[in-house]
Amino acid sequence: METLTSEKASLKSRASTFLKELQGKICAAIESVDGQKRFSIDRWDHPHGGGGDTRIIEQGGVFEKGGVNFSDVRGELSERLAQRLKVPPQAFQATGISVVLHPCNPMIPTAHFNLRYVEVENGDRWFGGGTDLTPYYLNEQDITHFHTTLKRVCDRHNPSYYPLFKKWCDEYFFIKHRHEERGVGGIFFDDLREQPEQSFAFVQDVGNAFLEAYIPIVNNRKKDQWGDAERQWQLHRRGRYVEFNLTYDRGTLFGLETDGRIESILMSLPPVVEWKYNFQPKPDSREAKLLDVLTKPKDWITLQV
Amino acid sequence: METLTSEKASLKSRASTFLKELQGKICAAIESVDGQKRFSIDRWDHPHGGGGDTRIIEQGGVFEKGGVNFSDVRGELSERLAQRLKVPPQAFQATGISVVLHPCNPMIPTAHFNLRYVEVENGDRWFGGGTDLTPYYLNEQDITHFHTTLKRVCDRHNPSYYPLFKKWCDEYFFIKHRHEERGVGGIFFDDLREQPEQSFAFVQDVGNAFLEAYIPIVNNRKKDQWGDAERQWQLHRRGRYVEFNLTYDRGTLFGLETDGRIESILMSLPPVVEWKYNFQPKPDSREAKLLDVLTKPKDWITLQV
Repeated sequence: METLTSEKASLKSRASTFLKELQGKICAAIESVDGQKRFSIDRWDHPHGGGGDTRIIEQGGVFEKGGVNFSDVRGELSERLAQRLKVPPQAFQATGISVVLHPCNPMIPTAHFNLRYVEVENGDRWFGGGTDLTPYYLNEQDITHFHTTLKRVCDRHNPSYYPLFKKWCDEYFFIKHRHEERGVGGIFFDDLREQPEQSFAFVQDVGNAFLEAYIPIVNNRKKDQWGDAERQWQLHRRGRYVEFNLTYDRGTLFGLETDGRIESILMSLPPVVEWKYNFQPKPDSREAKLLDVLTKPKDWITLQV
Repeated sequence: METLTSEKASLKSRASTFLKELQGKICAAIESVDGQKRFSIDRWDHPHGGGGDTRIIEQGGVFEKGGVNFSDVRGELSERLAQRLKVPPQAFQATGISVVLHPCNPMIPTAHFNLRYVEVENGDRWFGGGTDLTPYYLNEQDITHFHTTLKRVCDRHNPSYYPLFKKWCDEYFFIKHRHEERGVGGIFFDDLREQPEQSFAFVQDVGNAFLEAYIPIVNNRKKDQWGDAERQWQLHRRGRYVEFNLTYDRGTLFGLETDGRIESILMSLPPVVEWKYNFQPKPDSREAKLLDVLTKPKDWITLQV
């Protein structure tokens, strides 16, 4: 990538360093909450250059499966991918972190968090990312805490960010064939192309806020009681998570199309999943209340007013 | 669909009648082998006209989940779908049967079988279908029986069919991102457009042969012993089934894109599935032997010579 100026290369290198350090910080916090298991560390090379470090926790005290993946790779954009990214086909470099946490306890929501920096040969570069929550049972206080934490971070950078990125998140995580959301959202921003330094500052702030947004929810809910009925509902809803990720998720499809490391891409898939034919919750049940919210996304912040 | 001649309309009606009767025959045979559960019957209407009849067996004595779906629907081909089918966007009618059987015992392969007839407004019409086997453990005699039964049917109609459709099946059920086949194949034919009456005769023969190809395998294997290790391998391999169906399967994508009845389309998904990070079988194990075959598709018929 000789055409890149050293100033641009240095943004890439700073982004990569930040994301790598964030990985360590997130893993340490998750291990501390889990209390039973440590992350295994799996370093790998990408066939077209660069590589990554996939950290996995399985069958822990709190987390049934969690992945915290860092990567810093090079490759060539395919025709189709370039079209989707609205740039000509060319060489790219990308560094990113991707976190998916599937708790054992159905009262704790699944969390997803992702940040990435992409740079293409012609000089275009952008940040993207987001974080969102997938609960199995609704706890409005928890969800409001999650959204409020994100709004605070957004507001520090641009007051238009939170409403824009909250809406984008609801649009992105919509499972078209089910006519429902994957979860209760959060924020999602696909390509911050203007003012790279300001974007980097925002991305760092989001990165540092993820634990603050999610960990209190885990601690609030981890002693909650649950039984077979709650487990069955969790396994059923995890099916929707799989349907979304394999059918619509751009990160997953990007990985599959750029010959990415498949185990690191699909670490997002839940540990155990069930598909029962035409499974429907009882009317007015807690399960039905979740579906209500997933079919009509709410504005979680106004709840506090 | 006023442009269709009555002769053509009658092929559609005869195809539909044949497939509906076949559904009844298959369900009766599966119930008889299962011995414990009956199929539930779920009739539904399609939003754009027509409807279907989805029959499901769950937690049976032999089958953990099985679906036998019949449909006879109308709709409009989207731009994208029309492009894939190589016809202009227009109204279509389609009738089909789709069968997916997930046995409890990991020694019994999962079976998939499907036949369909599609007719578009401009007069084009074609049959498609196929059947294939997804074993968790290899039993070469069983697989050879399956392929031999299909070859015999093919040979009665055209000696080029079996080699052609066997190869097509291996190409179609290839999971690109895993570099492996979904199973040990069978036959697959996507559009028989020439000589509709001869094609219908062939399709009827394939339909009548499915039980003959699969049921003896179920009976051979259903008393085989299995334990936790075999169950875990089955749940792991079922993950590949999901990955294929949600990422590549044209029938699934056709259904999702034509606003099909989602529970009937996704009845193919296995009842319980596991995704463990980077799960690998031990070298030289029975599990590793299956992977060998899935990465290098075999010619099952020559085994008998």
